[in-house]
Amino acid sequence: MRRALQLAELGRGRTSPNPMVGAVVLDATAQLVGEGYHARAGEAHAEVGALAMAGERARGGTLVVTLEPCCHHGRTPPCSEAVIAAGVSRVVVAMADPNPQVAGGGLARLRAAGVEVLAGVAETEARSLNAPFLHRLATGRAHGILKWAMSLDGRTALPNGDSQWISGPPARDWVHRLRAQVDAVIVGGGTVRSDDPLLTSRGRRHTEPMRVVLSRQLVLPPKARLWDTTPAQTLVAHGPEAPAAARHHLDALGVERLCLTRCEPLALMEALAQRGCNQVLWECGPELAAAALRQQCVQRIAAVIAPKLLGGTAARTALGALELPSLAAAHPWHDVALQRLGSDLLWILDQR
Amino acid sequence: MRRALQLAELGRGRTSPNPMVGAVVLDATAQLVGEGYHARAGEAHAEVGALAMAGERARGGTLVVTLEPCCHHGRTPPCSEAVIAAGVSRVVVAMADPNPQVAGGGLARLRAAGVEVLAGVAETEARSLNAPFLHRLATGRAHGILKWAMSLDGRTALPNGDSQWISGPPARDWVHRLRAQVDAVIVGGGTVRSDDPLLTSRGRRHTEPMRVVLSRQLVLPPKARLWDTTPAQTLVAHGPEAPAAARHHLDALGVERLCLTRCEPLALMEALAQRGCNQVLWECGPELAAAALRQQCVQRIAAVIAPKLLGGTAARTALGALELPSLAAAHPWHDVALQRLGSDLLWILDQR
Repeated sequence: MRRALQLAELGRGRTSPNPMVGAVVLDATAQLVGEGYHARAGEAHAEVGALAMAGERARGGTLVVTLEPCCHHGRTPPCSEAVIAAGVSRVVVAMADPNPQVAGGGLARLRAAGVEVLAGVAETEARSLNAPFLHRLATGRAHGILKWAMSLDGRTALPNGDSQWISGPPARDWVHRLRAQVDAVIVGGGTVRSDDPLLTSRGRRHTEPMRVVLSRQLVLPPKARLWDTTPAQTLVAHGPEAPAAARHHLDALGVERLCLTRCEPLALMEALAQRGCNQVLWECGPELAAAALRQQCVQRIAAVIAPKLLGGTAARTALGALELPSLAAAHPWHDVALQRLGSDLLWILDQR
Repeated sequence: MRRALQLAELGRGRTSPNPMVGAVVLDATAQLVGEGYHARAGEAHAEVGALAMAGERARGGTLVVTLEPCCHHGRTPPCSEAVIAAGVSRVVVAMADPNPQVAGGGLARLRAAGVEVLAGVAETEARSLNAPFLHRLATGRAHGILKWAMSLDGRTALPNGDSQWISGPPARDWVHRLRAQVDAVIVGGGTVRSDDPLLTSRGRRHTEPMRVVLSRQLVLPPKARLWDTTPAQTLVAHGPEAPAAARHHLDALGVERLCLTRCEPLALMEALAQRGCNQVLWECGPELAAAALRQQCVQRIAAVIAPKLLGGTAARTALGALELPSLAAAHPWHDVALQRLGSDLLWILDQR
């Protein structure tokens, strides 16, 4: 199962709206004879690849897979039928598929065909691997990561607005790698106006993540790097109050628009989930970041802390108002990882 | 020498204005026969204790000591004479004593008496151990540590001013231990007014560090825990502009006063150095902290970062204005140590 989880990881950033899945096949003498993983939505499921590699050697053997084999016709035929056809005697799975079209049906089909099924092996690791997918199925919203870079004294800019660069090249490189693992990167209109960002993984992923701008009134610059959709798709989400002229300008540029019924983080996360986004990255300014937190649209924080002091009460910080009544209401986040990126620190924390 | 450095460390927090010093004696067959360290200013030097333990076995042996033996009559007689009298053949030292009353004179005296001298063994470690003492001798100012506790988004209070507690019990316990290692703890008048702090090590050191309040105009509460000098000494430093009535009030309370010619961090650090403080701890608010940084009165930063979000542009941060013209002027600090204190992070950095 540890090997199957490693294989699943190879699909990171490419499988949405599907989960990451890995599989290995052992023959009747417990020799490894097949490996597979789900490489991209629309392509073969992990079990199919592993069984194809094993061929006749799968007969009487064991399939180890990180997620319950499916039992429905989606973009590919049901895997549970392929498993039965391959003649394996035993299937070991880490977790049931929470997709309502499966939800135990795959395991039931296998058992009905006389295959021995062992479920729940390394389930914690498997759930952690696919936390964004599970979050989307459970809530109908994309899983959100909020990332910022700040000085040791908590500043994200000088009082004069200068913010490039607080962190060093290894931290900026890490951000590009993080973008390669998510389905969309979100900024507000203010970031487009002040930074004119590119928001790509710099080629680390072949289809770059979608770039999303949330802008209530579409007060946006006529020219911006995001309006060139050659490197990556751009989606501008706005409120019903956005003026027609601004909408037409974007339409004329060929930039896709999405009119939300309410221009707020929650509505955007629901819309992105419906478009198949499992995980998105908030790279926005303090007010939008605080709004996303208030609406429970941030499940993970990735804070880069540089060993520099910026000072200044007028200097920007990472978060606007959270409206906490007391310190007791500031619930601690769960420590996931702490590492150095060059001379900077990266602290990753999850909502409890 | 490693053992001698360990022994030296046992005096931490008690030797000022002297440095920490440790010594071991090996007999002629290289057996360890004596150990000593400088436990407190006015008490025996490390060499004297180690030689006393060795007794006659020191004759023909080796003295290993972290600092050059002194050659002057201070509160104790010169150690170089004691070393010669003990009949050791060889002296190994980590570093020369920068004290202008010694400055190589101790080693010269030993060599003149026919003792073999090896100097510079583990000099880097020895200099690091006594960095505050060396800083005071080189600059005439105490070595400053600036400590703060902040949320993950860089806040030291909620917008309503609530700041107790951002960090958890292990971090607060660590602050008490840190106070036991310094000669004085400094706050501004604002901290006395808002927090009424005690500023002791909570009994971790028998003579508590001196508590220092820097207050230009002596706008201070008539009652405060710091005015009770039973647990620890309190010194109130003020400017020449402080009104007579406020001075008399403190005098009547029995609290020591110090009128600085200019009420600023630099003048205070010089005055504290003259009083024999090697190292002091700034536990002040953002404006005084920024002033101390601008005047090069901070050589080390100890930042406690709690895994909580406070938010709010009106919320207090660790530092007021540093008046940096650009991000390039924000020089990175040197990473000394990173550790977890319960669920909080502690990051210690030194000025380069």
